[in-house]
Amino acid sequence: MAGEKITTRAQDYSQWYLDIVHRAGLAENSDVRGCMVIKPNGYAIWERMQRALDGMFKETGHVNAYFPLFIPKSFLAKEEQMAEGFAKECAVVTHYRLKAIPGKGVEVDPEARLEEELIVRPTSETIIWHTYKNWIQSYRDLPLLINQWANVVRWEMRTRLFLRTTEFLWQEGHTAHAKQAEAEEETHRMLEVYRRFAEEWMAMPVFTGPKTDGQKFPGAVYTLAIEAMMQDKKALQAGTSHFLGQNFAKAFGVQFQSAEGKLESPWATSWGVSTRLIGGLIMTHSDDQGLVVPPRLAPVHVAIVPIGKTPEEQKATVEAAGQLAAAIAAMPRDPFYGYDPLTVRIDKEFDKSPGFRFNEWELKGVPVRVEIGPKDLVQSACVLARRDRPGKEGKQMGIPLSDAPAKIDALLRDIQKSLFEKALAFREANTHRVDSYEEFKQKIEEPGGFFLAHWDGAKETEDRITQETKATIRCVPLEGTAEEGNCMVTGKPSKGRVVFAKAY
Amino acid sequence: MAGEKITTRAQDYSQWYLDIVHRAGLAENSDVRGCMVIKPNGYAIWERMQRALDGMFKETGHVNAYFPLFIPKSFLAKEEQMAEGFAKECAVVTHYRLKAIPGKGVEVDPEARLEEELIVRPTSETIIWHTYKNWIQSYRDLPLLINQWANVVRWEMRTRLFLRTTEFLWQEGHTAHAKQAEAEEETHRMLEVYRRFAEEWMAMPVFTGPKTDGQKFPGAVYTLAIEAMMQDKKALQAGTSHFLGQNFAKAFGVQFQSAEGKLESPWATSWGVSTRLIGGLIMTHSDDQGLVVPPRLAPVHVAIVPIGKTPEEQKATVEAAGQLAAAIAAMPRDPFYGYDPLTVRIDKEFDKSPGFRFNEWELKGVPVRVEIGPKDLVQSACVLARRDRPGKEGKQMGIPLSDAPAKIDALLRDIQKSLFEKALAFREANTHRVDSYEEFKQKIEEPGGFFLAHWDGAKETEDRITQETKATIRCVPLEGTAEEGNCMVTGKPSKGRVVFAKAY
Repeated sequence: MAGEKITTRAQDYSQWYLDIVHRAGLAENSDVRGCMVIKPNGYAIWERMQRALDGMFKETGHVNAYFPLFIPKSFLAKEEQMAEGFAKECAVVTHYRLKAIPGKGVEVDPEARLEEELIVRPTSETIIWHTYKNWIQSYRDLPLLINQWANVVRWEMRTRLFLRTTEFLWQEGHTAHAKQAEAEEETHRMLEVYRRFAEEWMAMPVFTGPKTDGQKFPGAVYTLAIEAMMQDKKALQAGTSHFLGQNFAKAFGVQFQSAEGKLESPWATSWGVSTRLIGGLIMTHSDDQGLVVPPRLAPVHVAIVPIGKTPEEQKATVEAAGQLAAAIAAMPRDPFYGYDPLTVRIDKEFDKSPGFRFNEWELKGVPVRVEIGPKDLVQSACVLARRDRPGKEGKQMGIPLSDAPAKIDALLRDIQKSLFEKALAFREANTHRVDSYEEFKQKIEEPGGFFLAHWDGAKETEDRITQETKATIRCVPLEGTAEEGNCMVTGKPSKGRVVFAKAY
Repeated sequence: MAGEKITTRAQDYSQWYLDIVHRAGLAENSDVRGCMVIKPNGYAIWERMQRALDGMFKETGHVNAYFPLFIPKSFLAKEEQMAEGFAKECAVVTHYRLKAIPGKGVEVDPEARLEEELIVRPTSETIIWHTYKNWIQSYRDLPLLINQWANVVRWEMRTRLFLRTTEFLWQEGHTAHAKQAEAEEETHRMLEVYRRFAEEWMAMPVFTGPKTDGQKFPGAVYTLAIEAMMQDKKALQAGTSHFLGQNFAKAFGVQFQSAEGKLESPWATSWGVSTRLIGGLIMTHSDDQGLVVPPRLAPVHVAIVPIGKTPEEQKATVEAAGQLAAAIAAMPRDPFYGYDPLTVRIDKEFDKSPGFRFNEWELKGVPVRVEIGPKDLVQSACVLARRDRPGKEGKQMGIPLSDAPAKIDALLRDIQKSLFEKALAFREANTHRVDSYEEFKQKIEEPGGFFLAHWDGAKETEDRITQETKATIRCVPLEGTAEEGNCMVTGKPSKGRVVFAKAY
């Protein structure tokens, strides 16, 4: 395996994605249908994402809590749209005991049947609003701004590592407010948190805006989403923020006494992002050399590769590498890196060729590689190579070792910026305005991409387009400007363009 | 509720514990049998614990990963002791779909029955060793040093918030080594990490050492534990580190090629601590005023209570509080606090009396309270009150506001130290050496505590003692010194004293 080239995007985009996931050690399928094992290199990216997001949630006044994994079956039935939308592909716990049969393994104890089946949470609105009933009595208890980091399970038939798995990790925010306007403001505030995280940390540009009614969360009044373009020009829904109105409060009988002394139902939001983001990160930045990780989320920022043939050369370059690593680690902690110290790895695999070693670090997506050979040492210098521009183009030669920590810091910041700009340029080059349905049907196949087109707002029109082209409306973009026009299918009037694309 | 006193320890120790858990907003029972809701104030302590432990795991070379929630039933049967020990109180998933019945709620779809039932993980040795089979081929793949933060489920009949719940949060480390000695070293290394965490972060002194064979983990060759004394003098097992030998490697067919070219089975360890630690923290330090949290794990370090009757007084003291809070937040990040900034809350509840407000912050366990009244302001001064010494004894008057940040930092460090010393003195005062079984039987009832006594090493003797006194052997303490003696029950020879106690 090691050393073999990965499939290129041009050869087979799907296989390219899987090659990166496997070869960079990010995840693998488990023997439990649809469930993945998140391997250390993948989990390390998730940890960085968690840290950054958690900090943003806390800055916006939220606290974390933890609610049960199991949801009594009857809870799911309480909110009607929820029951229809989620009471489908769920893992159901029916028994609570096994019996060991000596020599024959274990069996489910038929006598240990639960009176009421428990559902492994597919999302936690029901159990959380059931709990909020006891927490919310007065307007003084509001707003309630709570987030949960958790695993959830949705029994998926067709799975794909990170993008769609039966079990996945996520965060789900669940807030309660006294006034409708406050809840709607919160829904938009968290959309903006997601947009900032996607753009500023993941370097992944997104369109933001409401989903159409047909695509919203079951139980929501409306759903806002962030939508990113992958390198195959398909869309990935990367995060959602829902305004739930009073639906869950009413379904679970939650009421509070307002400042004016009246009994009212609180207004709710929920919002979440998941390990799916890792799939989005991979498909936004990676190339035919392997994984590319934006520096702000990179588990390892710098790989130092000392080079030498003789033991003396190796000893000298390893020593220089160690000194450089110490100098990098001694840099002050900075919010740009989430107050974490920069992480440095020193590669001592001298039994492999320098080229092989460079390729391995490129495959793993480490943003900056430092090469220190005997000739560099003569000048007390090193070579810096940036991952986002593989090959000679991205190399800076003869950097004095004493200047290297500051240069590396500057380079990491530049890579972060360049990755965003490159992704944005790609999206802009592949986002098209179309006005005729004929043109749309042709272009959605080739060249593909995002299409800004007028739509009459009718579900039938949306369904017809999806049936005929497999494209869906990703969102009604907040980034768009009001523009009078006519639906490309029916010719009926429209007030602005929406984003069409094929999607994951 | 608010303002009411909590039950005292002397009145009813169990109720005192529950009062603190409820009134400090740490957790509550959910409507799902045996599962708790960890409320924001409780979860914030868990987050601090996670950060500190995770840092220690990484310093000792471990990385995080994530394995599936579900375990195929057949996996549990593969390791014999495991099957007997854990294949009991487990949540069993048998179906993967529900049907919404319009107007009638939801039903389990009988056609969606799983071919093989899935068990919600009670612990992950089986699924992880099944996965390691593909990860371990050569001695070069070893050691494998992996940790997982996860939820687990053990169907408990009698539950108690934090101490024993059906679902709980924990970390589980699972390592694989080429040599037995390395694995045993790792088992002891992680015990030492737990000891340091308990003593240096939780300020909770512990005995450490092997459990007896009767009390070890199913599937382990031996189990090491940390054992703490609660204020009712009962023991709490607070963390365990298991040497698993080659049991799981052999059960799951994991082999590697050694440096000498031979096929060998790797040696394993596993180790874990859970949200049970929060119960231990509460019962080690809290008092009749409420929760006491050691500063290094406190979600809020400082509560500033401005005092004033007139709007002018209130405005002036709130302003001084804000300036002090900003000065505290501006102190450099320090490893003592896990590189997190100190957290400060300003209490503006002027409609409540100062005494009521002081009591509320004491109840919540905030380590340092700052009082700023109009008279203090005349001198540009404030009052510092330390939570571990409620009342006048713990107050320092007339502290210049300009000195307060440094004084608070020093005070927090002193509180951390004092809490440990106080808990250690309590344990020492309640740890007794006994040589006669008669004396043991009497004293285990009154005054109770930890008893260092000789034991002949036989399971029958241990069982007899437990049956007759409800005390168990907590561990064979590594802190003990070799001492020839005779079993207090049988008179047979013994090489050292073990720790007996009643336990949670």
